[in-house]
Amino acid sequence: MKTGLDCIPCFVRQTLDASRKVTDDPAIHVQILREVLRWMGEMDLSLSPPVLAQRIHRRLRELTGIDDPYREEKDQHNQMALSLLPGLRAQVAASPDPLMTAAHLAIAGNIIDLGAKSGLDESEVHEALLHAAEKPLEGDLETFREEVAKAATILYLADNCGEIVFDSLLIEQLGPQRVTLAVRGMPIINDATLQDAVSVGLDKLVPTLGNGSDAPGTVLDDCSDEFKNAFESADLIVSKGQGNFETLSDCGKNIFFLLKVKCPVVAVSVGLPVGTHVLRRGRRFL
Amino acid sequence: MKTGLDCIPCFVRQTLDASRKVTDDPAIHVQILREVLRWMGEMDLSLSPPVLAQRIHRRLRELTGIDDPYREEKDQHNQMALSLLPGLRAQVAASPDPLMTAAHLAIAGNIIDLGAKSGLDESEVHEALLHAAEKPLEGDLETFREEVAKAATILYLADNCGEIVFDSLLIEQLGPQRVTLAVRGMPIINDATLQDAVSVGLDKLVPTLGNGSDAPGTVLDDCSDEFKNAFESADLIVSKGQGNFETLSDCGKNIFFLLKVKCPVVAVSVGLPVGTHVLRRGRRFL
Repeated sequence: MKTGLDCIPCFVRQTLDASRKVTDDPAIHVQILREVLRWMGEMDLSLSPPVLAQRIHRRLRELTGIDDPYREEKDQHNQMALSLLPGLRAQVAASPDPLMTAAHLAIAGNIIDLGAKSGLDESEVHEALLHAAEKPLEGDLETFREEVAKAATILYLADNCGEIVFDSLLIEQLGPQRVTLAVRGMPIINDATLQDAVSVGLDKLVPTLGNGSDAPGTVLDDCSDEFKNAFESADLIVSKGQGNFETLSDCGKNIFFLLKVKCPVVAVSVGLPVGTHVLRRGRRFL
Repeated sequence: MKTGLDCIPCFVRQTLDASRKVTDDPAIHVQILREVLRWMGEMDLSLSPPVLAQRIHRRLRELTGIDDPYREEKDQHNQMALSLLPGLRAQVAASPDPLMTAAHLAIAGNIIDLGAKSGLDESEVHEALLHAAEKPLEGDLETFREEVAKAATILYLADNCGEIVFDSLLIEQLGPQRVTLAVRGMPIINDATLQDAVSVGLDKLVPTLGNGSDAPGTVLDDCSDEFKNAFESADLIVSKGQGNFETLSDCGKNIFFLLKVKCPVVAVSVGLPVGTHVLRRGRRFL
């Protein structure tokens, strides 16, 4: 997905939010904002939004010397999600359609995103998860079921901390023996890394790898060979969240995007309104 | 008032909104957005927000060749306001405190602002005016009453089209014989110009002058000598709206700012939340 003009004011706001998040130094807020404005004045709009976000957050880490500014919130989100897990696992077990219930819960967990919005209220997450099943799930549900039945190997692309705990419900339904989990290679916003997969115990359920990149999405050129091999060879790819959608929407693989639509630009791209829970197959032949 | 860092994402959004408003040509949307991003990358943050807005809208007029893109909406706002006037005038006449009732209605009319937000719903304006008196009016109300009683000459700085119709209610209470009305010198967003003052009949009530400038505020250096003389010599200045507040908040004159707070940056500056109706005296000795 290309960067839309509407992404630009949002990036400027995200830059300001992120700079305030990582430092109290107003000189750094001004410096990063001016740099980002100049980059965006020249930027290639055919790049996907996560490529610019990657550049902004790299520069913020460089200016502040803080490698993982969202560490504390990420731990909180993982712990909060773990506390909800037993109840939700029982809900999946009691469901007449455990695969779709688990998929829906994994998508509802995509609300835990500090890139798309500035703050996150814990009660919003509880609300979203506990009432996920009452909300419609839009997209290619039956095709997903068929492709899941056929696949010998599934690559699962995680998105955010906290959310990965709910992903374990879907991974359990997909069958852990054929799933490999991929997380970000380095800390970026509140996206999950290997440290988080280990911390919530997902590494004990499935083989887990970092993708080698610090983009808040999956920028293939920036990923490790190990990840690219897993990506190329998987029969089916399950992609969580907006960042993976924005970077892989045109990848042509057998991929399903599971996300909560959180911005108007993605809403136009998926053809469904902001707030929708989506399970959509990627366009295969581009 | 200086430009805050929070003004910057808002300006980027305003640029995009305004460019879409004045032309359907996506090449112009991209061009103006890139230019504004580069300007803002270098901009002097000690300037007030209307100075940058002036520059953006000048460039949009240059790129599109359209001198007054908001003309149609401005006419609609004037007509809508005129249709509400008789009822509101009766409300002022029946009030135990006609000066404050008229001031409050003039402030409620400040909702008609296409700079601070992208669109305006006519029913919002009706609602705001018909229920203005039920909303608290914050600020230096008694000082205003005293200064009004003392002043021999009052300069009234108008803000937007439509809103100027409601200003006539306050001007009638101030006493037209001592009031001069100033409007923008040239079209800028939906701000009122001489054409609007004439169209709604205000020029028959009080002497009216354009300020010589196309800034959406009062940038004194950019105003005509005629305006500057009126500004310097007035006993009392009544200033409507955010743009005039942003450009004159530190002017040191005997000035009262009458506005609806419409953005978080102005809210911090006046110390009252977004949405508040304010009648606040300027700081005189800076």
